[in-house]
Parts: sequence; C-alpha cells; structure tokens
Amino acid sequence: MASVGRRGFLKTLAGMAPAALAAPASAQTLAGEEWERVYGASFTPYGERSRFEQGVVRYLNQPYGGLAPGSGAAFSPIESLEGIITPSSLHNIRSHSGTPDIDPKRHQLVLHGLVARPLRFSIEALSRYPHVTRIHFIECSGNSNRGLAAQPLQLAAGAIHGNMSCSEWTGIPLRVLLEEAGMQPQAKWILAEGADSAHMSRSIPMEKALDDALVALYQNGERLRPEQGYPVRLLLPGFEGNMSVKWLRRLKLTEEPTYTKDETSKYTDLLPDGRALQFTFEMGPKSVITRPSSTMTLPRPGLYEISGLAWTGAGRVRKVDVSTDGGATWSEASLTGAERPKAFVRFRLPWEWKGGEAVLQSRTTDEKGNVQPTRRAWLSAYSPGNSYHNNSIVSWAVAADGSVQHAYA
Amino acid sequence: MASVGRRGFLKTLAGMAPAALAAPASAQTLAGEEWERVYGASFTPYGERSRFEQGVVRYLNQPYGGLAPGSGAAFSPIESLEGIITPSSLHNIRSHSGTPDIDPKRHQLVLHGLVARPLRFSIEALSRYPHVTRIHFIECSGNSNRGLAAQPLQLAAGAIHGNMSCSEWTGIPLRVLLEEAGMQPQAKWILAEGADSAHMSRSIPMEKALDDALVALYQNGERLRPEQGYPVRLLLPGFEGNMSVKWLRRLKLTEEPTYTKDETSKYTDLLPDGRALQFTFEMGPKSVITRPSSTMTLPRPGLYEISGLAWTGAGRVRKVDVSTDGGATWSEASLTGAERPKAFVRFRLPWEWKGGEAVLQSRTTDEKGNVQPTRRAWLSAYSPGNSYHNNSIVSWAVAADGSVQHAYA
Repeated sequence: MASVGRRGFLKTLAGMAPAALAAPASAQTLAGEEWERVYGASFTPYGERSRFEQGVVRYLNQPYGGLAPGSGAAFSPIESLEGIITPSSLHNIRSHSGTPDIDPKRHQLVLHGLVARPLRFSIEALSRYPHVTRIHFIECSGNSNRGLAAQPLQLAAGAIHGNMSCSEWTGIPLRVLLEEAGMQPQAKWILAEGADSAHMSRSIPMEKALDDALVALYQNGERLRPEQGYPVRLLLPGFEGNMSVKWLRRLKLTEEPTYTKDETSKYTDLLPDGRALQFTFEMGPKSVITRPSSTMTLPRPGLYEISGLAWTGAGRVRKVDVSTDGGATWSEASLTGAERPKAFVRFRLPWEWKGGEAVLQSRTTDEKGNVQPTRRAWLSAYSPGNSYHNNSIVSWAVAADGSVQHAYA
Repeated sequence: MASVGRRGFLKTLAGMAPAALAAPASAQTLAGEEWERVYGASFTPYGERSRFEQGVVRYLNQPYGGLAPGSGAAFSPIESLEGIITPSSLHNIRSHSGTPDIDPKRHQLVLHGLVARPLRFSIEALSRYPHVTRIHFIECSGNSNRGLAAQPLQLAAGAIHGNMSCSEWTGIPLRVLLEEAGMQPQAKWILAEGADSAHMSRSIPMEKALDDALVALYQNGERLRPEQGYPVRLLLPGFEGNMSVKWLRRLKLTEEPTYTKDETSKYTDLLPDGRALQFTFEMGPKSVITRPSSTMTLPRPGLYEISGLAWTGAGRVRKVDVSTDGGATWSEASLTGAERPKAFVRFRLPWEWKGGEAVLQSRTTDEKGNVQPTRRAWLSAYSPGNSYHNNSIVSWAVAADGSVQHAYA
C-alpha cells in the first residue's frame, strides 16, 4: 500500500520537492502581523475558544422538533478534534426528555431494594467517599446507525459516528456504596433510574456493578456538565451509553432484570430470523478515521497523516490496521492510549497521497481477539431493521481531485 | 497518624454510627423533585456548565490594573477540581502583554538561524505533520510565591498554588521540524519568540528541543485556547512554564543563549550570597493537598478523603506521603496517573477526622530520588528576595471547629 512508516515520514519528506509542506522563509516572513503590535486581551474568569474556532459545534439530531426539542442526540464533531479527550462542551449527548436543571443541594441518590440498610446520599456526602479517576469512552448503542442508510450519507464523520465521546471521569466505585448498604445475596440486578422527566431506567447486572462501575461526580476535572448528568451519573465503562444513567436518582437492587420501558424493542438488536437480542451491553471493537474523512478535501498530493479513534467495550485495543486501498492491504498504525481499558485510543499512520483514487479504512482488534467486522459481515448478522451496535468498518473514498466521500466498500 | 488505609475506609465506616455519611432512606425520599416532572432543556451546539457551578472561576492577578490588564496571571481554582486534567476554561494563564487575537490563516511559524533551509509553516501545513498526544503539566516558575509572604495568606489553595495546570496536548515533535530544516552542528540553543506584543522570548537548550519538546496545536481535544497560545505554542514538558512560548512565531537556532529581556533578573533565582542561578529550567518535585484546604470547613468529625496533586519536572512521581500531624508521621497515598512523566498525579488517602487539631501536609518523591523540601530547607537555600521555584511542603491547619487555615509549619 501507499502508506509510509512513521520513520519513513522524514525520509519521504526529504525525497520530495523542497517545501512540500513548509515553505522557504525569507526576511519578509519575519515581519510581524498587527496583533504583534497591539496590547492583547485581558484575563477571563472562565475561558472561551478563539472566535476563529466557533464553527466547530455538535451536530444536533432532534427528531421530535418543536414538540420535544431535548429528545434526541447531539453528535461530537470528531473530525475537528485530536487526541483522546473530548472537550466537555463538545461531548456527545443522548437525551430522552431534555436536560433537567438540578439543584445539587437538593438532589439525593437513593439506594434501596434488596439491601440491609436503604441509604440516601447528598452530593456533599458522596464527596467524602473515596474517589477514583479513570479515562473512559461512552458510545450510544445507536451510534453509526446513519451508516445504515441505503446510500452512504455525505456527512462529516462526526455527524455519522460522533454519538460517542471520551472523558476523564472521577467518582466513587459503585461497589463501595453497595457494600455500605449491605447487598442481600439474592440481589443479582440493579435498576438504575435517572431524575430526568423520562426517568431513563435500565437494569444493570450486579457483576458489572461490582466490577468497574462508577458513581461519577467530575468530568475532565470539573463537575459533570448538565448534559452529562450533573450532579451525579452512573458510569458503566464499555457498556452501551444509555445504561450509564445520567442525573442518577435511584439504585434499586433486585433479583431479576426489571424489563423497563427502555428495555423493549428499544435497545434490543433485531436478528435476520425475527428474534431479538436483549441486554447486549458491551460495545464491540470499532474505529473510525477522523482525518482525512468525508466532506474534507486534500488540497494537493503529498504527505498526510491518517488519524483516527479506536475503542472496544471488551477492554484494551491491541492493534489498529489501516488500509488505503479498500481493504486489499493493511498497515499497522501507531497507537496512543492503548494501555487504558475502555478508553479511546488515537491511531496514526503517515500516508503519501500520490493524487489517485484511494479508499481509507481502519480495523480494530482488541485484547480479547475480537476484530471489527466488515460492513458486509455485520449486515449479514442482523435484520435490516436493526439500528444498534453497528461497529462495522467505515470507508472514506478519496477521489483524484482530493475530495473525500463516504462510501460503502 | 490518624489516617486510615484505603481498605480501612469501609471497615472504619462499618464501625461508625450508621449513616455517618449517608442517611437512611425512607419512602418519602423516593418522591421526585420538580425537575423530574418537567421537560428538560434542549441541546446546545457547544455546552456550558451548570448555573450552580458558575462560582468556580480563576483567580485573577493583574498587578498593572487598568494600565495593562492582560499582564499578570490567572490561577486555576484547583481546590474545586478533581482528577488530573484541568478544564481548558480554568487553565492557569501567565501573560506578559495580554492575549493576542490571531488569525490562524495568516499566522506563520518561522524556523531560521543556524539551519540549512529556513522554513515557514502555516497552520494548515503543520496539521499534516505526524502528531503525538501526551498529558503534561505546565507550572509558572513563580507559582506559590504567594506562599512566601511574611504571614500565611488566608486564600484558597488555587489562589496560592494554582499558577499551574495539566492538559492533554497534541502536536508535532519539535525534532521533526528541526530535522526538516537541517540543523547545523554548531546550533546548541534555540531562541523561541511569541507573537504577543511583549514578544516573550526564551533560550531553549537544543538537548530539550530534540528530546520531548512539542509544537502543540490541540489542548484537551480541541484547538489551543487563545490564552494558551492559539494557534500554536511551544511545549517543554517539565520546564518552567514561561519557556513553553505561546503564540509561537519564530524559532531561531543559535550557538549560545540569547540572554533576552526575559532572561535577566526575571526568571533567575536569587541565592543567599547575592549570586543568582540562571536557566533553572526544570520544575522541582512538588505537591499540594486540594481537599481539604485553606478557607474550607469540615462540617463534622468523620471520614474524609484527602485528595491532592503531585508532579515533578524530572519525570515520574514515585510516591506521595501524607501527614496529618504536621510532618511527625507519614502515610503513603494512593496514586492515579503515576505512569505518566511530567504530568499531574492525583494522590488520595482516606482520613478519619476525630474533631481535634490537625496539620495536613504532602511530600512528593520522584523517580530520580528528588524529595520535596520542607519550607525551612527551601527558605535556607535561597535569598529572601527569590520568588521562583518555591516547591516547599504546604501546610493546612485544621482547627477543632473544622475550619482549615493556611499555616507555616
């Protein structure tokens, strides 16, 4: 394939025409712009972005329009971001009835059901428990269902695959609170309920609650954002996003799953034979190239860096392969963050685009040996009506004029 | 000492009166608040904090008042934050002439001096070079000089020690750009200049430039904030903050240090014998307890978590010891992030406050064996006029009424 190794980048650069990326400098280029000659802006108590960056915004998906504007989703503009952390202001949102305006002094988390001691926790009380900090992704189980349209939608990567994000979360291991309340032995599930008016409710297996579940209070250093569950949310690393119940209000220990209104045809996966899989909690191995990606244009032939995100609900990403010829040949990308389980990993591969057609793909393999499926394999495993857990390989087609389009390959 | 081990937390909790932190739950506590009964807010393109969190702001230090309001510093409110990442909106700022309003389409980075090929880079060109992503702290060399006042200032932790922050940075290894330009063998230093009207300028040793220096374009996932050098800054991990020149405009390779206006009595460390140390680049091993900390009040005796930040310019933090008796006895805290060099580490230790007086301290030891000095040892090493590189142990005194004060111990 046409990609070059990481160490090959400089070598290739050296072999190209001078100033292929950079330009020669002259005395004139040392002259200052006007902002070098005037006094700059004063300090701000809480900073903002540059006015030149304010076009980078979330993609809003409000299917119920004026009736219920807070029901739907907002997708993160992943094609404009870099690294692993999603800025909190650009974190994806999936909300069933809008963002509630919760007073943290009045909010209470109640732990009840099959426990020795039903307990309620104020936010102040929760703040005194032992905290942990971890980086984890959250992905909506419906993410990438826009990739299931009959024809490939010509939208930016974030508008198709941005119903996911990754943050540094700080909170209390759920296990600590459960042990304080005294779990009864027959308690095998937990009903988690939110304080939104939809009362988003999901059944959580006890095994997950005792493993790595968090009751999160902080996101990227500061208190949770309202859209992410302020003042307290559940966080179930690697599980489909809606189970990480936001605005967490109640945890009820039960013997069986509750089969709530949110556990019906919603959040179940329809199979070709008409049956449906329920409680498919774990998000599969997945990746998407964010740069270059659909709706972008490569200005001229030359060296580029292919950059993207990879993740898996099963734990760590073992490797990410990248193809520039639609899957005929693959090269292993370099990874940043691969030591962290259930977190975004940034993959990168230098690539020389010689000006012809190319089809860019990426493929994640995780530490359990799970491999991101081809689009064809994924489609054959589900009914055409299924819109959840689409983790199939994404294709971006580069045309000879440098334009990049979403393609099915 | 009175601290309890991490595993001891639950054991201690179990031995205390029921509901010492949590309260018993009753049927009444299951009734919903009004926000559970009304439709929530709609989506936003770029999110904001809760209205209940808007009191968490930076502490502004503008010594030149109305004359030069952008000259000075803004300190991060570290006592209100958790985890390792500082939210970009609350990142500390040190600026010599305010924040310039730079058009990224016009900004050029020029690489000149002792090179085979002087080069200029547009932001678009830089975006095509190989990127790396790393988490690093930046600390102003003058951080904690408010801890040198004759009497301990009764300010929040951030107003004394918050001239530092930690972000995920993404950018290009400076080495890559230097190799493209072709360093001449006699080039041992680099003059880095900013595009602010102060033209902040520092001499960088070539060894650092070739080691882990970055030309950073992204901060916490999005483009750099203007206050942090938009559209491009230098990042010298572990070195005093002002050397990580913001709004990076020129890099000039030289044989010797340039001894700029910013390398005079400013950013040099005055010794007891009247001599001054110059080019003391590396920030020493340091830590500060952020919770509980000065100006806070413990509401009642019981279990708390002592939480704080530790870091060192030398590489990784090896351990953090915590004392609750003014340094008589120490316990080792648990660490998050200790695998990352030149990044904040979050340390935590559960602590049972029995209601008496206590003096909380923390002490960092780094992987090179450097130990954070006592206040007395640090003071004896410098002239009373020195205001840089104060990495001495910080003391917070808890009174019997639960109030926490800044103390010299």
